[in-house]
Amino acid sequence: MERSIFMKSENAKKPIPAEGGQLDPDIVITGGMLLTMVEGEEPLKNASIFVKDEKIVQIGKNGEMPIEHGKAHVERIDASRGIILPGLVNAHSHAAMTLFRGYADDLPLKEWLIDKIFPLEARFLNEKTVYWGALLACMEMIASGTTCFLDGYFFQDGTVRAAQDAGLRALVAQGVIDFPAPGVPDPGENVAAAKAFVEKWQDFSSLIMPGIFCHSPLTCSERTLRMALEVSSKFGMPLQIHLSETREEVLAVVAKTGMRPVEYLKDLGWLDRPLIAVHAIHLNDEEIALMAKHRVRVVHVPESNMKLSSGIAPVDKMLKAGLTIGLGTDGSASNNDLDLFLEMDSAAKLAKISSMDPVCLSAGEALKMAVRGGASVLGLEREIGTIEVGKRADIIVVDLDAPHLTPLYDPCSTLVYSASGSDVKDVIVNGRVLMKDRTFTSLDPDEIKGKVREISRAIGLSV
Amino acid sequence: MERSIFMKSENAKKPIPAEGGQLDPDIVITGGMLLTMVEGEEPLKNASIFVKDEKIVQIGKNGEMPIEHGKAHVERIDASRGIILPGLVNAHSHAAMTLFRGYADDLPLKEWLIDKIFPLEARFLNEKTVYWGALLACMEMIASGTTCFLDGYFFQDGTVRAAQDAGLRALVAQGVIDFPAPGVPDPGENVAAAKAFVEKWQDFSSLIMPGIFCHSPLTCSERTLRMALEVSSKFGMPLQIHLSETREEVLAVVAKTGMRPVEYLKDLGWLDRPLIAVHAIHLNDEEIALMAKHRVRVVHVPESNMKLSSGIAPVDKMLKAGLTIGLGTDGSASNNDLDLFLEMDSAAKLAKISSMDPVCLSAGEALKMAVRGGASVLGLEREIGTIEVGKRADIIVVDLDAPHLTPLYDPCSTLVYSASGSDVKDVIVNGRVLMKDRTFTSLDPDEIKGKVREISRAIGLSV
Repeated sequence: MERSIFMKSENAKKPIPAEGGQLDPDIVITGGMLLTMVEGEEPLKNASIFVKDEKIVQIGKNGEMPIEHGKAHVERIDASRGIILPGLVNAHSHAAMTLFRGYADDLPLKEWLIDKIFPLEARFLNEKTVYWGALLACMEMIASGTTCFLDGYFFQDGTVRAAQDAGLRALVAQGVIDFPAPGVPDPGENVAAAKAFVEKWQDFSSLIMPGIFCHSPLTCSERTLRMALEVSSKFGMPLQIHLSETREEVLAVVAKTGMRPVEYLKDLGWLDRPLIAVHAIHLNDEEIALMAKHRVRVVHVPESNMKLSSGIAPVDKMLKAGLTIGLGTDGSASNNDLDLFLEMDSAAKLAKISSMDPVCLSAGEALKMAVRGGASVLGLEREIGTIEVGKRADIIVVDLDAPHLTPLYDPCSTLVYSASGSDVKDVIVNGRVLMKDRTFTSLDPDEIKGKVREISRAIGLSV
Repeated sequence: MERSIFMKSENAKKPIPAEGGQLDPDIVITGGMLLTMVEGEEPLKNASIFVKDEKIVQIGKNGEMPIEHGKAHVERIDASRGIILPGLVNAHSHAAMTLFRGYADDLPLKEWLIDKIFPLEARFLNEKTVYWGALLACMEMIASGTTCFLDGYFFQDGTVRAAQDAGLRALVAQGVIDFPAPGVPDPGENVAAAKAFVEKWQDFSSLIMPGIFCHSPLTCSERTLRMALEVSSKFGMPLQIHLSETREEVLAVVAKTGMRPVEYLKDLGWLDRPLIAVHAIHLNDEEIALMAKHRVRVVHVPESNMKLSSGIAPVDKMLKAGLTIGLGTDGSASNNDLDLFLEMDSAAKLAKISSMDPVCLSAGEALKMAVRGGASVLGLEREIGTIEVGKRADIIVVDLDAPHLTPLYDPCSTLVYSASGSDVKDVIVNGRVLMKDRTFTSLDPDEIKGKVREISRAIGLSV
């Protein structure tokens, strides 16, 4: 059985009856245009949302929910100038790589990774630096409307603590690779380290799900992949892997195994578990069909794929095959930001230019990818990804006041093609306000930036 | 002789001797990292810039210019948290198309243009609506660090007045097309209308240069193109045209003239005049060589080309051929914003993925394109495009305080891959502060947004 990050399974669709002023909400959002992201639902004008505890308890439109209660502790969010929508899900990141943002650009992937990033990681990563780097990433994600993220890296205790301190929802996975890695000097211990990580954090918080991230079918041995599969089964959590990011990698997997990467993973039994496949670029039609048959969940990371010249994922084909696709930024050393608004824009434009079909991946489809797609990649589509009564209150408000968001004809177009993360005004995760009027409530921005700058000075001086 | 938009030609390189407190600057910028954009110059730390009248009069580094003068009227810009650089040049726009931003997306170019945009233009454009749409565009450009723009559209009196009211530097060109056009119902009068426009505005302001913009070699007849050439020669101003934006257009030009578009323009004598060629996508090697030989100035508009699936301009080949290339956003109905920071990012990433070479179009090269490239496209490289004593004071400050701009290793990388227009803090054009600490000094944002929303409501109701 698939483990939920919530201890008790809730029915998201169960309506909570309106009781007028008796609802006693903790948070009241009023006055905006609401995109519920429920299939087929039109935008609601002048909407209101009541949040109580961790959930959405009532939704009104056309100003039909006047707020009569006079409780002093009600948090009021004014969305009258904005669009209210579910929080975005960053389905692939290496959060702490903010530490290396802008350190090494415009290089071939191999040189970037092997000559620049790996040595930096070996020298500068520890639980403390990962904590501060990940906390900066969490702050950046909150500031740009991301309420949930999937992460794979090393020293992940630091990332768990950062996500917890920030208040974000996250699947934090320990990286597994068959080289000496930061915090895991002996590759023979890599899966054991990941297993210990999962055991340590599995009951820590309802917002944090620990996981395992195998680097790639090439950099992980067959033995490692089989052991990771066992851990995934034992703890009921999805597997994650970088899949077919470069053409060279695919050729090397074929040379090593006699099979293409997806066939190889199937052969190992990986497709029988919930699998999150990141990049998914160099796939043939048979592989796409196989992935669809086994309900593999794909994460599209267009900007990183462009910047590193890895290739263009066949998004249109994968969507047509019925695959679930989420959107990710990748680490900020290869993008170089964690802004999913910009990633949606890039995803739509890249799909159009690569297919030479301007109809391909509309604004609405790109938005769905970043919201519901991400929720489904996580297996949390019953908990998050739409704004419905009974669902978790992961909600953002985008302010439409900026010149570049004027005028408004189509909210999806405005959000995808015109907005950037800096237009996000308020962020709520699991019924807790994390940013209000662009002020962080859970984090101290100056402390975090100061700590990261301190680390970056040591990195800068080392070269 | 090429006409300058400045009545008197100045020598940008002439140094103005430092006289300590006697310089009596109007504006003092202090404390930032300065990218002068002069070839080969490293970033200067803790820099200061003195501006007097319309020019840069002194530059200091390492805090060596303490400000001793005590004049009350000195405008002080604190750049201590930021990067100081020359203002960006948006080398292709249709400013007033902000009116249609987000109205029609995810459509084939022809359908978008002929079924959606042309009818809207016919019905809703007049000098007043163009003024408000262009003013919104000017506000958006100021807010995102653009200090100079090139524009082609109709009812351009409105755009001239908007640029003037905003305080931006601009080449504003009257559109010419052999169809009935907004404000020019008789195509037989199109060049005459453009000529009258140029005559009307040529001595109006040192910041505004009027011009002529022929829609394309296909939509303008040979007669029209020849007449436009005469106007360009008479008034000493560059010609502008959309060149080889789609494959279909190239085939149609070949069918019509027996020549490829660049050969056709050469045949007409167009390459003997300063020519600004926009899009420049579907070119063969001979055309690129011909353009280089004749010093055609190219404007690259990657996001619009992606969104409309027009194709990918051969930027790498054109740079190798020595062509001058500027960067443009196109109109905000096909992008859908006027943010050159995001355009630089897209330009770099698109070049890498299309060439499958991650070294192609580095951050530094993309930045150069948006700054010096644009200045050269305009023929203003001696006046703007770098920060040097004697040059016009077109300067912006980018605030580095945001989480996504932390840490800083390489200012070019930070500006191109991480920043967006919303990070711009201060904007100076020709020695006048247009935005300070993100507050506009020349414009009333609420009035402008209100007027455009009013127009957009009429447009929205019309369908």
